[in-house]
Amino acid sequence: MAVGFLGLGVVGSGVFRALTQRADLHVKSILVRDLGKPRPVPVPPGLLTTDPDRVLNDPDISLVVEVMGGERPALDYIRRALEAGKHVVTANKEVMAKHGLELLKLAGEKGVNLLFEASVGGGIPVLGPLMKDLAANRILSIHAIINGTTNYILTRMAQAGLNFADALREAQELGYAEPDPTNDVEGIDAAYKLAILATLAFHTAVRVEGVYREGITRLQAKDFRYAKELGYAIKLLAIARRNGDALQLRVHPVWVPQEHLLAKVDGAFNAVEIEGDLVGHVVFHGQGAGPLPTSSAVVGDMLEVSRGLAAGRVRSPALRLEEGLRVLPMEEVETRYYIRLTAADQPGVLAQIARIMGDLRISIDSVIQKDADRRAQTAEIVITTHPAREAAVQKALGEIAKLSVVRQVSNLVRVEDWPEEGSGA
Amino acid sequence: MAVGFLGLGVVGSGVFRALTQRADLHVKSILVRDLGKPRPVPVPPGLLTTDPDRVLNDPDISLVVEVMGGERPALDYIRRALEAGKHVVTANKEVMAKHGLELLKLAGEKGVNLLFEASVGGGIPVLGPLMKDLAANRILSIHAIINGTTNYILTRMAQAGLNFADALREAQELGYAEPDPTNDVEGIDAAYKLAILATLAFHTAVRVEGVYREGITRLQAKDFRYAKELGYAIKLLAIARRNGDALQLRVHPVWVPQEHLLAKVDGAFNAVEIEGDLVGHVVFHGQGAGPLPTSSAVVGDMLEVSRGLAAGRVRSPALRLEEGLRVLPMEEVETRYYIRLTAADQPGVLAQIARIMGDLRISIDSVIQKDADRRAQTAEIVITTHPAREAAVQKALGEIAKLSVVRQVSNLVRVEDWPEEGSGA
Repeated sequence: MAVGFLGLGVVGSGVFRALTQRADLHVKSILVRDLGKPRPVPVPPGLLTTDPDRVLNDPDISLVVEVMGGERPALDYIRRALEAGKHVVTANKEVMAKHGLELLKLAGEKGVNLLFEASVGGGIPVLGPLMKDLAANRILSIHAIINGTTNYILTRMAQAGLNFADALREAQELGYAEPDPTNDVEGIDAAYKLAILATLAFHTAVRVEGVYREGITRLQAKDFRYAKELGYAIKLLAIARRNGDALQLRVHPVWVPQEHLLAKVDGAFNAVEIEGDLVGHVVFHGQGAGPLPTSSAVVGDMLEVSRGLAAGRVRSPALRLEEGLRVLPMEEVETRYYIRLTAADQPGVLAQIARIMGDLRISIDSVIQKDADRRAQTAEIVITTHPAREAAVQKALGEIAKLSVVRQVSNLVRVEDWPEEGSGA
Repeated sequence: MAVGFLGLGVVGSGVFRALTQRADLHVKSILVRDLGKPRPVPVPPGLLTTDPDRVLNDPDISLVVEVMGGERPALDYIRRALEAGKHVVTANKEVMAKHGLELLKLAGEKGVNLLFEASVGGGIPVLGPLMKDLAANRILSIHAIINGTTNYILTRMAQAGLNFADALREAQELGYAEPDPTNDVEGIDAAYKLAILATLAFHTAVRVEGVYREGITRLQAKDFRYAKELGYAIKLLAIARRNGDALQLRVHPVWVPQEHLLAKVDGAFNAVEIEGDLVGHVVFHGQGAGPLPTSSAVVGDMLEVSRGLAAGRVRSPALRLEEGLRVLPMEEVETRYYIRLTAADQPGVLAQIARIMGDLRISIDSVIQKDADRRAQTAEIVITTHPAREAAVQKALGEIAKLSVVRQVSNLVRVEDWPEEGSGA
């Protein structure tokens, strides 16, 4: 089968290298921006082209691999490839999160495959198992660490006590973070991946704009110390949870109980936990990025296409959208909270704070008073709550911030707990 | 699609219950041994039969679900179902481990599916991802906790300091262990599952008899204490590892570094780590048994069959056996070792032991002398080694046991280490 590449960057070079050992998938043309750019892998000179038509208009090429990334022009090229009746394998989370439904519909009409396992979790098999092996389940929730950059930064902050800026700089020096880290540290990348996961898991057309999103830039070293003291790790989680006829969709830092597997996912690793009504909780763990792991998923999808063709037919993933769940507004989400604030170090402060929370029906789980500052006559107060409604907590924080004895509401991090699971042998 | 059941025990009842919510899979007949036995799920009386022909000879039934377990008569029934051109979904690890190749060949000849995801890891998607999503990889190793009973017992020994007999009794009282626990505690069940995994992963016809096997009955509470002291957990691992042109295949207790994910798999949970040349290490974690998780895999396979039929064709998993690796004899395996022995509490003992090991080129990593028994004038000596060859270690232990100063060689547990993995973001 003749294959055309769109892009030959880090991921594309990894895929190209993986293909050199296979006789069944023959690379015919590779679209690049710059013919002269040095490549990490030797490529026969005749393969490279700056003309997209040499990939998209070549009737020989039946499978197009899109590994250029970004929304444009990747979206237009994928569209043209599908229109031309070519199968497409892509690693592009942004395109799939924003335009996946349109593209999958087009692929269905044209009777070709559009596969995108590499768009979530790098080489970790997640989308395939979700759509096939777990198909018997009603999916209840997804909790995922799906951005290696932020997980690396959070791991360094937790283990070495670094502040955010230093951990970010280290990640940039090691090549784990981009010069402009916005997409990662603000949770945008994770939101793309969550939109893809949730669309497939909950049979609902999830839009990226529907995902509530908070990044990791407000976390401080002391947040990690307090979390550890109370038995938690801090992770940037992408969460989708069935909530009656609605769907919670959120990406934000979370306190995760230390004994939970997700708390133990360190460095640039990824892990996706899927909860189904039959299977309970299953976790998929591995390297979520990097040229080799990503090429595992891309070439896996290519082999899926070629097996389908060899068997004389194409079987696209069954995309079902019949549930059509509405997105639960963040204000209606109920979860637990960690709140850190600075207040005057004097009697009666806690009583004033507790009264505000009590009036809003927020039940306090624990209070720790910390770090009295003799000179400023202030103390740091750390509060964790039982499950409470986001709207009530935000209202309470507004009122608490107005108390004359309160200097600053410093941070809020949501706390997730997992129910005990029957663990039959 | 009309479905016939073979068996309606714990797993069968779970599958039947899961199917009651589906209109697409209609149960027509269920073979049971005892029509009058109370069932955990209400079954219309007309469905039950003691006559296998009502399932195997009914031309209406195109899909047979085998959930009776055990080698016979399950094997004969599966054979007859395939011969009759029926698709078969089975959860039977013993039949698949011993006769899987013959049965898959038969299914291929008859143009029907034989699916068996539930035979390994309960509801955790493992075989599907291995055969499909990871197909681009050359598999390098598998390390699996695939027996919930033994993992529960080991967890209780580690966490509560129980001895083996008490932990086993507790597991039996909770229903995690059978009245006759041999299959589990001797590693037989894990060996079946490893044979299935390794056959698919290494494209080699693996026979159960080729799996080296040691159970958990010799472990004592103090082995867990020493392991913990040196930074390890003890797990019963099923290991398959590419070793040149050969294959290591072994099931035995292993010291696992505490920071490794497999060390954190507790209770009756299962986890399978697969290492591929592209993907690196991926781990699949979840409940490895129980009626609901197992029914997730069985019904998932049934949906795979029905999707295939709806699309007008059957696609059996690509079973390739072209590698044909030989099994590496256990004596040639190289790994690290933990050795515990009791010796006279007097000068020069360690020197004698070290000389024997040195002569056999076994390099010692650490020695701890423990628990001096004043009355008996003995001390317990704990030795860990660098990688050494099994044959040399067994020879050394034989010679050490003959030393007049050595009272007893009490235990030997193999130690696995994992290489650091490049963790690109």
